[in-house]
This record gives sequence, C-alpha cells and structure tokens, in this order.
Amino acid sequence: MDGFLGVLGGMGPLATADFLGKLVENSPALVDQDHVPVIVYGDCTTPDRTASIVGTGPSPLPKLLAGITLLNQAGVKAICIPCNSAHCWYDELSAASSVPVFHIVKASAEQVRKKQPDAKTVGVLSTFGTHQMGIYRDTLAAMGYAVVAPSEDEFHTLVSPAIAMIKANRLDEAEDVFREAASRLRARGAEIIILGCTEIPIGMRRQYRETPALFVDSNDALALAVIDFFAA
Amino acid sequence: MDGFLGVLGGMGPLATADFLGKLVENSPALVDQDHVPVIVYGDCTTPDRTASIVGTGPSPLPKLLAGITLLNQAGVKAICIPCNSAHCWYDELSAASSVPVFHIVKASAEQVRKKQPDAKTVGVLSTFGTHQMGIYRDTLAAMGYAVVAPSEDEFHTLVSPAIAMIKANRLDEAEDVFREAASRLRARGAEIIILGCTEIPIGMRRQYRETPALFVDSNDALALAVIDFFAA
Repeated sequence: MDGFLGVLGGMGPLATADFLGKLVENSPALVDQDHVPVIVYGDCTTPDRTASIVGTGPSPLPKLLAGITLLNQAGVKAICIPCNSAHCWYDELSAASSVPVFHIVKASAEQVRKKQPDAKTVGVLSTFGTHQMGIYRDTLAAMGYAVVAPSEDEFHTLVSPAIAMIKANRLDEAEDVFREAASRLRARGAEIIILGCTEIPIGMRRQYRETPALFVDSNDALALAVIDFFAA
Repeated sequence: MDGFLGVLGGMGPLATADFLGKLVENSPALVDQDHVPVIVYGDCTTPDRTASIVGTGPSPLPKLLAGITLLNQAGVKAICIPCNSAHCWYDELSAASSVPVFHIVKASAEQVRKKQPDAKTVGVLSTFGTHQMGIYRDTLAAMGYAVVAPSEDEFHTLVSPAIAMIKANRLDEAEDVFREAASRLRARGAEIIILGCTEIPIGMRRQYRETPALFVDSNDALALAVIDFFAA
C-alpha cells in the first residue's frame, strides 16, 4: 500500500478508534502489509463542535487547522475526519490542505444510494450542531431525497444526552435512547437512517447488527471511501 | 490533559485500533477533552517482526526508527508501542527517542502482580518471535515467576496460525484455536496467562469476558500504564 492516510481524529477518541477498526475490517487484506498505513492526529482537547456552532463555546478551528498542518507536513496522501460536526469547517480545512480531504457527508450519501437505491426519504441522526448547520439536509436534498430529522425537543431529550453517554462510556444506556430516536424517524417516513455522528454507531451496535440495511454508519461510509481511494 | 501520547502502531493495524479503544475505555473521562491526546504513526507496511527474528525476512528496525523520529519531531510527551514483538528492538528504539518509551512487557508483568498476587506460574501466549527472544521469560523470571509457554510444535500448529487468522479478519476461527492453546498452558500449571501479542486479545474476547481474572491483556496493560503516566 503506497502512501499514508492522514486521520484528523480525537472527536471523540472512541469514534477514532472505531474508524480505524472499520478501516481494517472493510479492507480486503490478508496480512498487515496490505492495509492502509495511517498517521492519526487525535487531539481530543479540540473544543466541542456543537457548543461552538450554537455559540456557547470557543471555535475548534485553530486546533483543526493545527492537525491539518501536521498531517500535511508528515506527507500524507489524503486526509479524513471521522467526526461529522467538524465538517461544518470543511471548506476552511480543505483550503488549508495541499492534499485531498474526504467528505464524510458525501461518503454517507453515496452509501444510501448503494444500500437502498429506491429510498425516497432519509432520516438523519446527528449532533445538534451538525443539524443546525444543515450539512446533511443540503447534500441529501440536492440528491433529491426528502430528509427527516429529530425535532429540537428530541435533540435535547434524546439525541444529545445519548451522545454524551457514549462520550462517558455508558454505551448500554445510550443504545435504548438511540433506538427510540430512530423509531420516531421511521414513524415519520424514514426508509433508511444515516448515523451522522461518529459516536452514534458505537451506541447502536446491536440495532445495526439486527438490521444493517436500515442504517448507514457514517464512520463505515468514510472507511469505504478511503479504501476505494487507496485501492485506485 | 497536557501533552500528546505518541503511538508507534500499525503492527497490526487492528491491534492499534484495539489499543486506542482500551485507552479510552480505561480512562476515567466524562468528555472528549479529559482523554489522552494521541498522535499515531501506524505504518502497517513495517516488515513482519517474527519473520525478521527467525531470519526469514528483513528487519523492521528502519521503519520503527522512522516512526520514533516522526513522533519525537511532533513533540509527543511519551511513546508506546502496541506490539509485543516490536519490543525485541526496544533498546534501539528507546535510545533513539528523546522522550520515554513504555515497555509493554513490564506493563503486563505489573498487571500479573495486581490481578493474581499469589500466582507462582505464569503462562505466556505470544508470537513465535517474541518467544524466541525471551522477553517475557526473562522479565517474569527476574520477578520470581515460573513461566510456561507453548511448545515449538504448538506455536506452529496453534498460536501462529491463529494470529494469522486475526490479521486476515477471521476472528471466530481464531477464538477456538486460542482457547485450546490457553487450556494446554493451564494444564501445565499456568495460574494466569499473559496475552503477550496484541492481536491475541482480539481473538479471545469471549474467553476474556468469561474469566478476566485468568488473563492479562498486554494491550490493556499498556493502556493502564499510559493512563497512570498522563494522570501523574
């Protein structure tokens, strides 16, 4: 395998570990040497993305740019960011990088097309920050999909608390809450649901295993896009 | 959390992802920002460690030193290597680093003391290369333990094939083989068994969950040593 993948990670650190695992599991490799070499910049002290978007915390951009700079200096061939909310700063990060930066939202939207070619309505579970910035809504709408997302009340009572449970390692508790949030999107017409925050698949492992065709895991979608790129 | 942990990884890539997950799971953190920031150099094209030790492949040392150099240049505070066999080159790597390098064998031996303070006989499952170099045998003997390991025949028919299964993503098959290898060590008096190759815990998840007191997972031991260091 030629060249390193740069991973701008740490948001959160468990999502980065999960991404690296999915990169390995999805690779058609038989020995270590067939996998994609990686350099990971995992600064988990990067300020919370959603807090910045809703105006209650500092911007993560300076730390994100520090990571982009280090990865470019290390000579990586391309960069991916296993954090959906960080893609609210995608344009600035991509402009600061001399190598291509994968887009997790586009990678996830592609997997919707592959998994459910006839779907018309797509549900999105994400952080409140990603939702506010509309990065999934706009990309999916441009592809002709109707998009359903939790209400502001459902973000505050279900999705945001469950994401915080993952970050505090309370995975089992989170699973029940995400199950409820997903079933509400399905009741409103979602034929497939994008897990559009890289913490969410960690909290929905059982449900994903039971019905993989009903979900797109954004971390998995990103890994698949990376593997395609490095195989080319 | 102050300063980055450098991780010299990619040996194999799944063991690195597993280590990062264990670093998160063992941390008493409630939010991303409480975890240990990491920079990972994961060059999975590093030549096979055991092949080099038994004289059938090139040395991994040049690539290992390239990783140590990059991590030092990136300004990390300490370095860990989630690969037991790579510790056969520990002295060279430690000498080339201006920051401390954790020793996975010492970290694992410490966990034996904590988990089974009365144990006298310790089993070690490792790669054949780690076994040949005697890094566990010598460290444990110096601490007063009797050490049991697979026979050369058991390495060739059980342990080495099962490690190759992990590297090829055949986890379930590997589990049965490792179970047999562990039960043979127990029959020869092992009161606790060190999983002294970072791929092995990935292939013994069920057995470890059933009887965690009977095993020391070297990846877990390394994560615990790192967390202690960064909390100090």
